[in-house]
Amino acid sequence: MSSNKEPMELHGQNIIGNETSAQGKKTYTAFDPRQGRPLTQEFVNATPEEIDRALSLAEQAFHDYRKCSSSDIAAFLETIATEILNLGDQLIETASAESGLTAERLIGERARTTNQLRMFAGLVREGSWVDARIDRAQPDRKPLPKVDLRRILIPIGPVIVFGASNFPLAFSVAGGDTASALAARNPVIVKVHPAHPATSELVARALQKAIHDCQMPAGVFSLLHGETAEISIALVRHPLAKAVGFTGSQTAGRALFDAASQRPEPIPVYAEMGSVNPVFLLPGAVAERPEALAQGVKQSVTLGMGQFCTCPGLIVGMNLAPIGDSLRKQFAEAAPGTMLRPGILNAYQRGVEKLEQVAGVRSTRASTVSDAAKTEASPAVLETEAATFLANPELGHEVFGPSTVLVHCGSRAELEAVARHLEGSLTASVHGTDRDLAEHRTLIDILETKAGRLLFNGYPTGVEVCPSMNHGGPYPATSDVKFTSVGTAAIYRFARPICYQNFPQSLLPPELQDGNPANIWRTVDGTLTRDS
Amino acid sequence: MSSNKEPMELHGQNIIGNETSAQGKKTYTAFDPRQGRPLTQEFVNATPEEIDRALSLAEQAFHDYRKCSSSDIAAFLETIATEILNLGDQLIETASAESGLTAERLIGERARTTNQLRMFAGLVREGSWVDARIDRAQPDRKPLPKVDLRRILIPIGPVIVFGASNFPLAFSVAGGDTASALAARNPVIVKVHPAHPATSELVARALQKAIHDCQMPAGVFSLLHGETAEISIALVRHPLAKAVGFTGSQTAGRALFDAASQRPEPIPVYAEMGSVNPVFLLPGAVAERPEALAQGVKQSVTLGMGQFCTCPGLIVGMNLAPIGDSLRKQFAEAAPGTMLRPGILNAYQRGVEKLEQVAGVRSTRASTVSDAAKTEASPAVLETEAATFLANPELGHEVFGPSTVLVHCGSRAELEAVARHLEGSLTASVHGTDRDLAEHRTLIDILETKAGRLLFNGYPTGVEVCPSMNHGGPYPATSDVKFTSVGTAAIYRFARPICYQNFPQSLLPPELQDGNPANIWRTVDGTLTRDS
Repeated sequence: MSSNKEPMELHGQNIIGNETSAQGKKTYTAFDPRQGRPLTQEFVNATPEEIDRALSLAEQAFHDYRKCSSSDIAAFLETIATEILNLGDQLIETASAESGLTAERLIGERARTTNQLRMFAGLVREGSWVDARIDRAQPDRKPLPKVDLRRILIPIGPVIVFGASNFPLAFSVAGGDTASALAARNPVIVKVHPAHPATSELVARALQKAIHDCQMPAGVFSLLHGETAEISIALVRHPLAKAVGFTGSQTAGRALFDAASQRPEPIPVYAEMGSVNPVFLLPGAVAERPEALAQGVKQSVTLGMGQFCTCPGLIVGMNLAPIGDSLRKQFAEAAPGTMLRPGILNAYQRGVEKLEQVAGVRSTRASTVSDAAKTEASPAVLETEAATFLANPELGHEVFGPSTVLVHCGSRAELEAVARHLEGSLTASVHGTDRDLAEHRTLIDILETKAGRLLFNGYPTGVEVCPSMNHGGPYPATSDVKFTSVGTAAIYRFARPICYQNFPQSLLPPELQDGNPANIWRTVDGTLTRDS
Repeated sequence: MSSNKEPMELHGQNIIGNETSAQGKKTYTAFDPRQGRPLTQEFVNATPEEIDRALSLAEQAFHDYRKCSSSDIAAFLETIATEILNLGDQLIETASAESGLTAERLIGERARTTNQLRMFAGLVREGSWVDARIDRAQPDRKPLPKVDLRRILIPIGPVIVFGASNFPLAFSVAGGDTASALAARNPVIVKVHPAHPATSELVARALQKAIHDCQMPAGVFSLLHGETAEISIALVRHPLAKAVGFTGSQTAGRALFDAASQRPEPIPVYAEMGSVNPVFLLPGAVAERPEALAQGVKQSVTLGMGQFCTCPGLIVGMNLAPIGDSLRKQFAEAAPGTMLRPGILNAYQRGVEKLEQVAGVRSTRASTVSDAAKTEASPAVLETEAATFLANPELGHEVFGPSTVLVHCGSRAELEAVARHLEGSLTASVHGTDRDLAEHRTLIDILETKAGRLLFNGYPTGVEVCPSMNHGGPYPATSDVKFTSVGTAAIYRFARPICYQNFPQSLLPPELQDGNPANIWRTVDGTLTRDS
């Protein structure tokens, strides 16, 4: 780690392939949420011409990049990880200033980011993810001869990635979307989240260095600044864009989805839009360990000031009096904290106030936030009964931040009614004893249709990056329930099948050649094998 | 086979689970394209209430159906196949009367249909398609313990299937969409193609019998009649519908896609909308075997009167004079034939006339179709130069029927310009010698970005049903390039991942339990294995 090296001087420009570009006149600055004041570095919004140039260059790069060998792609991803680490303390300090997140949290997030890049490098190097399938010719088959057919997944083309505000590293410039799109051999154009442009430029320059060192085509990566919805929509509408990765609010995600669906050639938008992440506390568990459950809930709700897609915004159960007592006590004393940016702070405060105004809802939060800069928010717990919850849909919508709604149910039927009433979520958690589970199979059945990940005796915050993770879920958690944005399966968002019929060996990719030179798992005549 | 049994009497009603329903007042009849007159049996269009009832029943059935064992699902699919065969000659005769297709063709199509059902039964019985992934807990991992995570594909819910006019069996009531949706454990509601309602009722009743005999929940299948776009759109907009399978025209497919995308909860539409299926004839092959190529092209274009999604509508090459000579001769003498229905006949004739009016296009077809009923169409070959093709986008759009456009290129650069100009297609074919291939790598590269299946020295008509088939392609060939509608991979359109975190063994599906009782391939801690 090069913590003592000279810090990099920022240029604040768009990065288009190996060039910088600042044709536009409109600039913006980031904001230090802890200090409550704007930062000084100016960043230049991209113009329509710059957008077009980035996409054209990406399309051009695509034709070379998609022909790179698996080992070259893997080495490229690993070099990106190394170059991110080489940014040293400057990256952590910059990201902390722009997000209000602690250095400790950001060092952990950087490790996740570099691990993700290395995980996809490993996936690509092993190679079997391409789902190669070979059905050999049977020239003598009756009534018709069978042709030779070989299928593999190939990249789709330039991918637009929108950085998320709450993960300035792991869901941003070189985050999971970019890593999986690059791993599948697609060029990437990142639209910077305006909350952390300096962090974005640093990571983009690490990426540029990796591209240079690995001799990749320059257009494989561009970084564009854009404060306005117009710039985002123009990117999604560009005819050369082939897919979009997004993490953020439902409003923004849906706007991108709508723009993409209405193109002459529609393209997919993989929008992860967060969710309410219900936690069900079943009677046996509540009777057995009320204080532990209340503390676990409070910790999960307030972790990182609730600024996670998986923050549990809804706690549902029967006989919750002891849980309610404990949560009221804990939230009344909960420490206020800095939110990522003023817009998020305001939305959180308005969201909590809106719920507080619902008749039949009781709220508990620390009296007043007294920090001079007014950048801090108070965690809040709201309480209500099942009937009120069922009658007021807003109680089941996400409020991004450290609040949760405790729903008291009077019966199993009410508990199940609340579960059936839920919108799609990234996660659903159940705390219970063995006996609880035996009595609540119906609840589990309902939750299987509502969420992408089901947790038993756990809390949804903390998303492991691995092959079996599913970070996705029914709408509005995501715009496409079939895909995860975390873990190795995220690569399938950016690949599509192609089938070669009676093709000469020399024109087939190595993964489909008779000798299996890539040494991958393949389905040959219906049987999974690694044989040649 | 029960060819001598009493024919089934048709009721002409909607089938909702195990009941028939005819609440509506509007009826329609099919049309005998060979006789040029309407058939007598009346069919009752579905009402909004009937649509709602079918979807509600499907949702209800879903909760039981999705819990069925793999072997029960497989047996159900196989029973459907058996019951279709048990319809005997009545099915073939009915389908022939409604489509004008020959008994021979329909017997082949029936075999394909029953084979598809059995193929999915085999896929489900083997079981590994669910892509099970297990990452085991590491309680002692530092800095954080690792939880136990297990991921599997589960069904998505009620699927709406729209029957296609050109495959009254294989892409209709119990065709590939229905078979793959049922195999993935989703209920299906079929919207009958109004060209073959009697055929549809027969197959639906075979399905009903299979549901009864296999003791499946009744709502797992419904059949609704609908002549109008309103009924189709109402089905796609129903809140309980979770996905749509469609094969047909670009106009209709796009309308369904738009309706589905604009829902409060968008759902995927897998629309296979046909394509132009370009065939490139490279110079070495043209010099070597001009007459064989011309005959191959003519046969593929006119097979089934060109009423296949994969009919080659564009022939591109250099030095094509001998090919042109032969095609003109063959098409001038080509026999007219019956089209599936008057609407398709009219659209074909209008489509060819439109191309004939483009300046620089020369047309050859048999002078006049003289059948009294005016139900027959003449195959046509249109010829032009690359410059004209590039200047007139309509020459690159599909005309459904037995016509093709021969594009003469003067150079390799022109050939590649034509290839780059193409819209997305299901297939692209290249005829060439080894030397041609060495000289035209760029063409292959371009075509890889344009089509879902690439053929070497073959013709695109004839789609093998197997694991490595890809019947899909970039828009407008389909609405989602990531999926095939033919072959085992078609099942992935109707499944989505779910992840169980720290779940007790007893609540996990067998595919994810430690002992691997389903005996399937799984990715355990990153390694593919069949071990427990």
